[in-house]
Amino acid sequence: MTLTLVQVTAWIINIGTELTIGRIVNTNGVFLARELHLRGVDVRRIICVPDIEDEVIPVLREAINKANIVITTGGLGPTADDQTALFLAKALNRKLVLNRDALDIIREKYRSVGLHLTPDREKMAYLPEGARPIPNPVGTAPGIHIILSSTHHVFALPGVPSEMEAMFREYVLNAIEPLLPNICIIEEGVIVRNLPESSLAPLLRKASKLCSDCYVKSHPKGEELRKPIIDVRVVASANTCDEARLKAIRVIEELVKLVGAEGGVVENSSKS
Amino acid sequence: MTLTLVQVTAWIINIGTELTIGRIVNTNGVFLARELHLRGVDVRRIICVPDIEDEVIPVLREAINKANIVITTGGLGPTADDQTALFLAKALNRKLVLNRDALDIIREKYRSVGLHLTPDREKMAYLPEGARPIPNPVGTAPGIHIILSSTHHVFALPGVPSEMEAMFREYVLNAIEPLLPNICIIEEGVIVRNLPESSLAPLLRKASKLCSDCYVKSHPKGEELRKPIIDVRVVASANTCDEARLKAIRVIEELVKLVGAEGGVVENSSKS
Repeated sequence: MTLTLVQVTAWIINIGTELTIGRIVNTNGVFLARELHLRGVDVRRIICVPDIEDEVIPVLREAINKANIVITTGGLGPTADDQTALFLAKALNRKLVLNRDALDIIREKYRSVGLHLTPDREKMAYLPEGARPIPNPVGTAPGIHIILSSTHHVFALPGVPSEMEAMFREYVLNAIEPLLPNICIIEEGVIVRNLPESSLAPLLRKASKLCSDCYVKSHPKGEELRKPIIDVRVVASANTCDEARLKAIRVIEELVKLVGAEGGVVENSSKS
Repeated sequence: MTLTLVQVTAWIINIGTELTIGRIVNTNGVFLARELHLRGVDVRRIICVPDIEDEVIPVLREAINKANIVITTGGLGPTADDQTALFLAKALNRKLVLNRDALDIIREKYRSVGLHLTPDREKMAYLPEGARPIPNPVGTAPGIHIILSSTHHVFALPGVPSEMEAMFREYVLNAIEPLLPNICIIEEGVIVRNLPESSLAPLLRKASKLCSDCYVKSHPKGEELRKPIIDVRVVASANTCDEARLKAIRVIEELVKLVGAEGGVVENSSKS
């Protein structure tokens, strides 16, 4: 039930006390997880951590030790609690240095609207030594790209979703392209009615045997006892999309047969 | 800028591959974080981890080592990928045993709709040795409560939000009541327009000095250069709500003064 074909791993670290006090939902985490997953990257963590040095640095260190791709969001702006560049530098035992390319980008952004550099604006140009600034097509703070090896990258993106998404699409995807496995990931789903999840469980196990590397998951939407409605998802991966789809459909078809025999009803579900 | 009065820590662990493939947003994490934060608990992590034993167990061990309160969601149902009870038992080096109280609860639930126990239903009654089942007023799978000491608790709740929320409100809150600090947390906010976040930064630093243990954060909503709109939040804690509110308002009032002097505009914001 795991995607054994997938080898490239990622950890997503969402930095910001607004997340851990439950003030905002972590939509950045789900966006990045979905984008990476659909390209065959195995996302092993999505971690929200408050803007506290002693909390962030160990998380960054563990992520860098364990994952091929580490993406952080948040903490790149001009305010005092925006300290991701410093935390990354410390986690990597590098100096935080003024990056000339980043400074040029920032100076030009403010100049275009008639504003000068100030210490708070210049602060956004201090990056860990050896890092590359990631252009921000939407806002002002550049992101940070650190190449540890050809298969080991760290990216720091802003917390503002429109900036983060643009920088992911325009920069990060190109940078990780050479790492991406040559596989296609397909998700198929059906809705099962009138069968409690506890009765569906043995049928799922049986149907899953037709694809040892598919990920099969049931999401209860109704009430187990009185009105069971279960969204069943099958995620399959293969070298081609046709092959992946065939693997998923084989599991679904078997499940439809088994559910019908137990008196359940199967309906099509939207694909995502 | 940190809530130094707060001493009780929590880690929230959301278990489920549906989260790390970006299929669903982690609304359970934000619900629990908000509820705990408003009661003075310092939430240090919200971690999404896939249903993989080697990924989940180290996360559980670290959470149990570091936090007073650990709350997991997901993995309590009847299907093969529902393994949180087993993972918790392994993380704590305890046996997974049939819990008679849990079995009674489950047997009665199914009996009430004319269904018998099956191995998949009975599976939900296997808990780590010494654990207590948490009644599930909405669904069937009981939760798990493990008391490690009077100030050290582990709770496992289901992933279905309606079940999780009911069990948190009806059981977990009572169980952690004795740990909760005798403080009131207040959040106040204003919207600042016409001032880039980089110009607001020094004003925030200055205003923040009026409350060393307030948490002050700016959330950019507009465009830094052309149309800056910044949501500023001040979180304050004190022994009484009046005292906490005074601390937050003192910072806000100073900020309003400083922003006005720089040509910015301040509006009230919803308290959310």
